[in-house]
Amino acid sequence: MAGPIKVVHWGLGAMGGGMVRLVQRRVGLISHGAVDTDPAKTGRDLGEAVCFERRLGVSVEGEARQALTGGDICLIATSSFVEEVFSQIVAALAAGLDVICLAEEMACPWADHSGLADEIDRRAKQSGCTVLGTGINPGFVLDTLIIALTGVCGRVRQIRAARINDLSPFGPTVMRTQGVGTSPEEFRRGLEDGIIVGHVGFPQSMHLIARALGWKIDRVEQDREPIISKTHRETGFIKVEPGMVAGCRHLARAFVGDQEVISLEHPQQILPEIEGVQTGDYIWINGDPDINLSIRPEIPGGKGTISIAVNMIPLVLEARPGLLTMADLPVPRALIGELAPEAVQ
Amino acid sequence: MAGPIKVVHWGLGAMGGGMVRLVQRRVGLISHGAVDTDPAKTGRDLGEAVCFERRLGVSVEGEARQALTGGDICLIATSSFVEEVFSQIVAALAAGLDVICLAEEMACPWADHSGLADEIDRRAKQSGCTVLGTGINPGFVLDTLIIALTGVCGRVRQIRAARINDLSPFGPTVMRTQGVGTSPEEFRRGLEDGIIVGHVGFPQSMHLIARALGWKIDRVEQDREPIISKTHRETGFIKVEPGMVAGCRHLARAFVGDQEVISLEHPQQILPEIEGVQTGDYIWINGDPDINLSIRPEIPGGKGTISIAVNMIPLVLEARPGLLTMADLPVPRALIGELAPEAVQ
Repeated sequence: MAGPIKVVHWGLGAMGGGMVRLVQRRVGLISHGAVDTDPAKTGRDLGEAVCFERRLGVSVEGEARQALTGGDICLIATSSFVEEVFSQIVAALAAGLDVICLAEEMACPWADHSGLADEIDRRAKQSGCTVLGTGINPGFVLDTLIIALTGVCGRVRQIRAARINDLSPFGPTVMRTQGVGTSPEEFRRGLEDGIIVGHVGFPQSMHLIARALGWKIDRVEQDREPIISKTHRETGFIKVEPGMVAGCRHLARAFVGDQEVISLEHPQQILPEIEGVQTGDYIWINGDPDINLSIRPEIPGGKGTISIAVNMIPLVLEARPGLLTMADLPVPRALIGELAPEAVQ
Repeated sequence: MAGPIKVVHWGLGAMGGGMVRLVQRRVGLISHGAVDTDPAKTGRDLGEAVCFERRLGVSVEGEARQALTGGDICLIATSSFVEEVFSQIVAALAAGLDVICLAEEMACPWADHSGLADEIDRRAKQSGCTVLGTGINPGFVLDTLIIALTGVCGRVRQIRAARINDLSPFGPTVMRTQGVGTSPEEFRRGLEDGIIVGHVGFPQSMHLIARALGWKIDRVEQDREPIISKTHRETGFIKVEPGMVAGCRHLARAFVGDQEVISLEHPQQILPEIEGVQTGDYIWINGDPDINLSIRPEIPGGKGTISIAVNMIPLVLEARPGLLTMADLPVPRALIGELAPEAVQ
């Protein structure tokens, strides 16, 4: 490919904006176009729209067509759900762009949307383009990293993993969707109403692991429980008194027949360390050999998602056409730009 | 590919024999041929030669040609060094087989043998075959796993990692090459004489990381120091008194210009826990974000090497022709056979 890789940014929220900033720091990448439906952003310069320290000479479009024209790859960071990003992916493919999508469900869209997944795959192949769903989780911690670790196992009986993080940096939207600050009764109702959702992505991580290992998952069970605080906890956004909900312990279990083969846990709460809970990413493989991995503290979600999406760009551009997963591509790596000797200092 | 994958085993030592046993447990793989120069093994049935619980109907050959004929992939576990496996790889390629080689230097043969590496690459492409060097280390812990973790980083300044293991299970050969049971003076002389070697593979791991990240390493410095025991330590093979050498602390540092970018440490000793040293694999990435990973205890070297080599077979068969590294292939994974539901129990 002659010249820098031309990146189109679709969605300029926290993740999309972060990717715009990272692309500017990378040799070999250039922001070519941008799409967002927020009227506060459309029509403005991309740099201004994401509070970057300079104008980028790219206008934020409300419609995708013009932004996509002439681009090489489209980074979609607009929604968590396959049904909502489907038309965006289709539009990018129709314009001849490869796609990296941060929608959690796109990490393995066959898990819950096999029809749409097959349709994306068909259209990608038709246009000779590649589509990848990725992110820190799903996309890395509770799936790709687990898969890689099984590579040193002669046998795998069962996989358990947990991602224990601190929600303190997050604002009102996340507090609401995780039920932070509710009473146990409000939490229960929030779950029923679909306002409290916990983590999006467990079935996707599980199906990604299972596809790689050759397991056929028969069912996935999920539970969302309130984490009741024993202490006073307070962030810039919310106060939690003893007896109130500090977060959501979301668990998922995957079964082959009656055998539980994968169990994933993602308790998300504010200030877990107040009650002695150390944040981290933890993986236990019951196999031959057993493996017991810890990453402390956990890989931060925002930075990790932004980084892996941008880092995968060259691997996606070189990949075969079709809808792929992280398990189909070479191991991720920090790539291109800023890693030259002068930048190491 | 119709029918099972036909595997040829070249080298039937501890690693080679372990791979024979693992291949028998895998659906989709069959031992097709075997080569070893040990007169105690040639002419015998492969199962008997590696103390497997049954005959395998495959004769161990002293010459490669007959064993290779009709095979799909050759697992070479004969030596640590590129110069010693070169002719074996060439023979397997000439017979039209893909190759997975456990020689530590083959994990990234360009590190110290770029001429031979290029020649292997040329011959592999010529015959439409793939060659991969792998193993637990080099091949996974201190390179592939590190590369994968950088994938969630927006910036990588420096990488440090350590693999702290226990040599107690090993016999006289390893005791000698690691200097266990020597006096500090004997250790120094053993290093000079080349009898004590420490770990083989640091330059390979470092170049593998650097190639993936786009760093150009200017030099690698290595140090081998005696681990002097403060206590009495004793295994079935050796006794170490206080003041004697319990093992070899092998360190390597890679520089870009004057900047140290990678530092790897592999202290190998008997019974480290006697002096409070916990075995494990440790990775620290100084970047954005920082990453702090532990695997405790360490991934066992023998099982890990045997498993990853066999697990990579399908990925190597599907890969493009040429000499590849672990960074070129999809993430490793425990694959095929024994992972069906009935085997999970």
